[in-house]
Amino acid sequence: MQPRIEAGVLGATGMVGQHFIRFLANHPWFQVTWVGASDRSAGKKYSEATAWRLGGTMPAAVADLTVEECKPGKGAPKLVFSATDASVATEIEQSFAKAGHTVVSNSRNHRMEADVPLLVPEVNPEHLGVLPLQKQNRGWSGQIVTNPNCSTIVLAMALAPLKPFGIERTLVTTMQAISGAGYPGVASMDINANVIPFIGSEEEKMESETQKILGAFDGAAFNAHPMAVSAQCNRVPVVDGHLVAVSVQLAAKAGEAELIGAMNAFRGAPQERGLPSAPAQPVIYMSDRDRPQPRRDVERENGMVVFTGRMRKCPVFDFKFLALGHNTVRGAAGAAVLNAELMHSEGIL
Amino acid sequence: MQPRIEAGVLGATGMVGQHFIRFLANHPWFQVTWVGASDRSAGKKYSEATAWRLGGTMPAAVADLTVEECKPGKGAPKLVFSATDASVATEIEQSFAKAGHTVVSNSRNHRMEADVPLLVPEVNPEHLGVLPLQKQNRGWSGQIVTNPNCSTIVLAMALAPLKPFGIERTLVTTMQAISGAGYPGVASMDINANVIPFIGSEEEKMESETQKILGAFDGAAFNAHPMAVSAQCNRVPVVDGHLVAVSVQLAAKAGEAELIGAMNAFRGAPQERGLPSAPAQPVIYMSDRDRPQPRRDVERENGMVVFTGRMRKCPVFDFKFLALGHNTVRGAAGAAVLNAELMHSEGIL
Amino acid sequence: MQPRIEAGVLGATGMVGQHFIRFLANHPWFQVTWVGASDRSAGKKYSEATAWRLGGTMPAAVADLTVEECKPGKGAPKLVFSATDASVATEIEQSFAKAGHTVVSNSRNHRMEADVPLLVPEVNPEHLGVLPLQKQNRGWSGQIVTNPNCSTIVLAMALAPLKPFGIERTLVTTMQAISGAGYPGVASMDINANVIPFIGSEEEKMESETQKILGAFDGAAFNAHPMAVSAQCNRVPVVDGHLVAVSVQLAAKAGEAELIGAMNAFRGAPQERGLPSAPAQPVIYMSDRDRPQPRRDVERENGMVVFTGRMRKCPVFDFKFLALGHNTVRGAAGAAVLNAELMHSEGIL
Amino acid sequence: MQPRIEAGVLGATGMVGQHFIRFLANHPWFQVTWVGASDRSAGKKYSEATAWRLGGTMPAAVADLTVEECKPGKGAPKLVFSATDASVATEIEQSFAKAGHTVVSNSRNHRMEADVPLLVPEVNPEHLGVLPLQKQNRGWSGQIVTNPNCSTIVLAMALAPLKPFGIERTLVTTMQAISGAGYPGVASMDINANVIPFIGSEEEKMESETQKILGAFDGAAFNAHPMAVSAQCNRVPVVDGHLVAVSVQLAAKAGEAELIGAMNAFRGAPQERGLPSAPAQPVIYMSDRDRPQPRRDVERENGMVVFTGRMRKCPVFDFKFLALGHNTVRGAAGAAVLNAELMHSEGIL
Repeated sequence: MQPRIEAGVLGATGMVGQHFIRFLANHPWFQVTWVGASDRSAGKKYSEATAWRLGGTMPAAVADLTVEECKPGKGAPKLVFSATDASVATEIEQSFAKAGHTVVSNSRNHRMEADVPLLVPEVNPEHLGVLPLQKQNRGWSGQIVTNPNCSTIVLAMALAPLKPFGIERTLVTTMQAISGAGYPGVASMDINANVIPFIGSEEEKMESETQKILGAFDGAAFNAHPMAVSAQCNRVPVVDGHLVAVSVQLAAKAGEAELIGAMNAFRGAPQERGLPSAPAQPVIYMSDRDRPQPRRDVERENGMVVFTGRMRKCPVFDFKFLALGHNTVRGAAGAAVLNAELMHSEGIL
Repeated sequence: MQPRIEAGVLGATGMVGQHFIRFLANHPWFQVTWVGASDRSAGKKYSEATAWRLGGTMPAAVADLTVEECKPGKGAPKLVFSATDASVATEIEQSFAKAGHTVVSNSRNHRMEADVPLLVPEVNPEHLGVLPLQKQNRGWSGQIVTNPNCSTIVLAMALAPLKPFGIERTLVTTMQAISGAGYPGVASMDINANVIPFIGSEEEKMESETQKILGAFDGAAFNAHPMAVSAQCNRVPVVDGHLVAVSVQLAAKAGEAELIGAMNAFRGAPQERGLPSAPAQPVIYMSDRDRPQPRRDVERENGMVVFTGRMRKCPVFDFKFLALGHNTVRGAAGAAVLNAELMHSEGIL
Repeated sequence: MQPRIEAGVLGATGMVGQHFIRFLANHPWFQVTWVGASDRSAGKKYSEATAWRLGGTMPAAVADLTVEECKPGKGAPKLVFSATDASVATEIEQSFAKAGHTVVSNSRNHRMEADVPLLVPEVNPEHLGVLPLQKQNRGWSGQIVTNPNCSTIVLAMALAPLKPFGIERTLVTTMQAISGAGYPGVASMDINANVIPFIGSEEEKMESETQKILGAFDGAAFNAHPMAVSAQCNRVPVVDGHLVAVSVQLAAKAGEAELIGAMNAFRGAPQERGLPSAPAQPVIYMSDRDRPQPRRDVERENGMVVFTGRMRKCPVFDFKFLALGHNTVRGAAGAAVLNAELMHSEGIL
Repeated sequence: MQPRIEAGVLGATGMVGQHFIRFLANHPWFQVTWVGASDRSAGKKYSEATAWRLGGTMPAAVADLTVEECKPGKGAPKLVFSATDASVATEIEQSFAKAGHTVVSNSRNHRMEADVPLLVPEVNPEHLGVLPLQKQNRGWSGQIVTNPNCSTIVLAMALAPLKPFGIERTLVTTMQAISGAGYPGVASMDINANVIPFIGSEEEKMESETQKILGAFDGAAFNAHPMAVSAQCNRVPVVDGHLVAVSVQLAAKAGEAELIGAMNAFRGAPQERGLPSAPAQPVIYMSDRDRPQPRRDVERENGMVVFTGRMRKCPVFDFKFLALGHNTVRGAAGAAVLNAELMHSEGIL
């Protein structure tokens, strides 16, 4: 067995950081050997600095690592995953990229920049082509790659198989899990037996990020997909899993069976290359009339699959259907790790 | 004080029947003097035949009534409210109408028939004009009037103020409370910390009923409103209150402020005539960025108001917004009672 | 109609403060004319300084009051209700008492002090007898009176009717609502579809406060009731209402019927004097086999009653039963207001 | 690899039956080759007869089995697991035992009979010694073995390590998951944001079963453990996992550390013999101040461990603590399978 590639986690003590630690616990290629967090935590053992919020227990191999400040030159390996909070991510991530690190980020800060890939390995691996331009623009020896917002990726992966049919317009309403808000996140007094029909900036992110992800990279710039996207985002009292009700207008005539077939047949670079975190089938259509459901389906396939269902004619557009994805796995840590795997498979890590 | 009008409740022991009993408990015009249910309950006292599922305790005035079979000729008063199950409502309601009763029904069975009003007093009081035709067609001395499905009425009341702007298309996604499914209704194993993205026949009902309600009665027939309607219906773990995310395409140019103004200014016959169950303002726009919310808003104004919020531009259509209504009050018992009040105010009870 | 007594609320912008504002909204004796909060809020209108978290809307009469700092000499009326946080309550409450105010407090800080009444008007009105001693000890022209912790009061009121039977030991397990933790309080990630079997200091409070409340005041000192009390406190995903499972060992032989009878017959000074917030019957035994239940029963009787149920033999002690109370009403704002009413009825406000 | 032992499941299409099917899916010793259910299902494929309610999908190896009637002589293998409903279990299980089958039952019907083991392999493996007597008494060539009720087993396993300290009395309050009630089980209208403080016969079962399990088999009869047990049972809105708050009075003087040590050191026959479903450590004490918690801990260790926590002095008895177990695994299917493994290890299957 080959030695594993050393990896660091920026923002390792927070909720998203913990998801990275857990997701990477037994990874065949990457090994977490460095953890960074705020000044407050620096110098402590990871196990002392971290209130572990996830199910199960903290992976033993990480518990004894000493937490470092999130600054380059503290011994961080070349590959760092970023789970830093948006309030500090811009500066931290740029300082690491400048210092030669490959920053694989889950933060929103750089997603929409013109020379940063907003990467979904099954959907737009060619967007990595912007990286040389990024380094040149910024004068960096390192680089930054991002993954989408946790609700965006569910929509983007469900729509990707339909691109050949010419997506013209899509209207979506989300029902999003509380884990998407981090910790402490949503107050129980707000969400218990309730729906909160507002998530700050979420609708804007879904609308713009989806267009970038499904758009083309022409060798010099990203061209947003021309489809119109409108999102209404809601928080529901569900632990994990963002459920999205989608209506689409397509350019081509197609029947339910063709669209379902396209979803089930959809494959991308991660599947072709057998990347370790890649699901065998990235989009799975469920034929039961009342699925997918967050609590019953979200943990299947290691949380890396987007489940779809209820494809049917829409009296206003062409079709309506459901999509479900695991917001803290496929929508966060798992997405970033798969991005790193793709980059490794291309030799650009 | 005038003597109150005697009223019966068909299906009085079930969940919807209990909502009628509670809503009518201190009604100034109507007094429940007769309760009908299945053979199994007939002959028992209402308090013995009924497992009271609602908050508080059973109204004392009804507890001692003897339950009768749901058949005409058992002493039922002229006015009967129908909370009968769809599996038996067609036959029961027709037999009462034939026998001269005015049946004010919450059941779905007759809603879409060509000579039956699907009535929302603020929206389409003129639909009552079909009743002479109904009696003639059916050879009935009585009559049947219906109210919409519990999710339809939320949408219909929210859209009614926008009719002057020319509604062309509307796409909605609902997040519906468990109380909409009756008792025992949704199994907790299904809905606890989950979303069930399927409610049998609900989408079809919302699509067709909304067109009928907002359509015109030309003196001879109902003409469905020509707008296209598409609904995606979901069950969420909320006790009471259906929340609907709406996108609309309008014929006229308008700004958010005009639409909000139209909602707040909307009034109808119940307000003009001061009907006892009529809210002062049937549609209330909430300006907070995260309202309306089911748990916090549904009980306000006796559950008879539809609350709207978050009016904003839609990148695909013209506008998107939220609407919330109390499914067991404005969407069931309260709707039917307001229908009866409207009929009484027109002297056709 | 007599002019109402002016009242202030210390900590008026927080969650408990809001409960005071709402509970006092239409009070016949007291009128909120002054609101105090932290420096951060001082100088703003109450409506601007307060994120209203309760159902319904902020009472109009209070919305325009200017928030003052929580210091004496800022125009506060003689009577002030204290909803201040425990971290600052000691200093604030003492400074007001020193300055001549009557502080009717919901904070825990002074509850267990030897010269401060921990008052439940139905249970220990004679504890007010310590106030002259308090003034003398402290050199205050004002005074401080407290009400119990929100879980304690449920237990204390349920046990009070059993005192004549000689309570020797009581073992209780609580299932407490999230509203007991204030706002933002419990993170939804912690409590959604979960139980948190720990509430900081709650068990100690229930154990010691119950003994003080049920104990005697001998004219000079409080003598704790000699019964042993053990509590296990749990947070459950319920909005309002603390449910307590109680087992008791009694000195006297008694049957279920006697204990139930004693509960239903229990009355105290508030009932005798007809205090405005007093429930007609402070403890109501429910005979249904599965009641009381928090969601179905907690709002009845304006939240001022403790409901009991399921009295049955205990194979270890003598009897076991359930008790339920509204933690933010009878366990907080309503408790304090009833305390003030009792004091007014004794002319010592 | 040795051929696996064929096993049947009685009541295979119900919720408990599904748990058996899932738990046995990849079992190293047993293979489900036969499924029995009601007349209504008999003759259909298992996949057609069964509405799969569990997470994930139905195990493929079972999907194509033909459902048989629950009668001996229909080709059932010698070993049958019984997930039959209590209303029919007595007759079905006895008919199989009479016909020579070993019935490993999760049903309550035979648990308290004088010649039937109520088995917890770590706690009372010697209770199997009654089986020859059972066969003789009943004239059966087969036999019946049972596992405890899903809340009993949590208590029994948590108390077993304390037996050496002399348990004299125990008072418990449960907070039980909705999955314990089967399907559809508890109506969501009852339990959503609520507690139901009543579970039919549950308290009686916990009290009597615990005494039998911890009692001795003297070669001829079971002698119930003399400790007094009192239970208060509540349903809470949690998906899986019964949490029990326990207070115990012990004969011996002991400190927290000794009791915790005894829990962590507790081992039994399943561990000594390395039974396939045996957890390495059957009782795990968690030292965090707010654990165990149902949602966060119940799935750990394949659901076969009882987690304890919060050991502390009890002002009324000696100690109080918490215990948590997976009601559908350790409290049902997993318990029965471990029973069968124990019997196989003794050569009496």
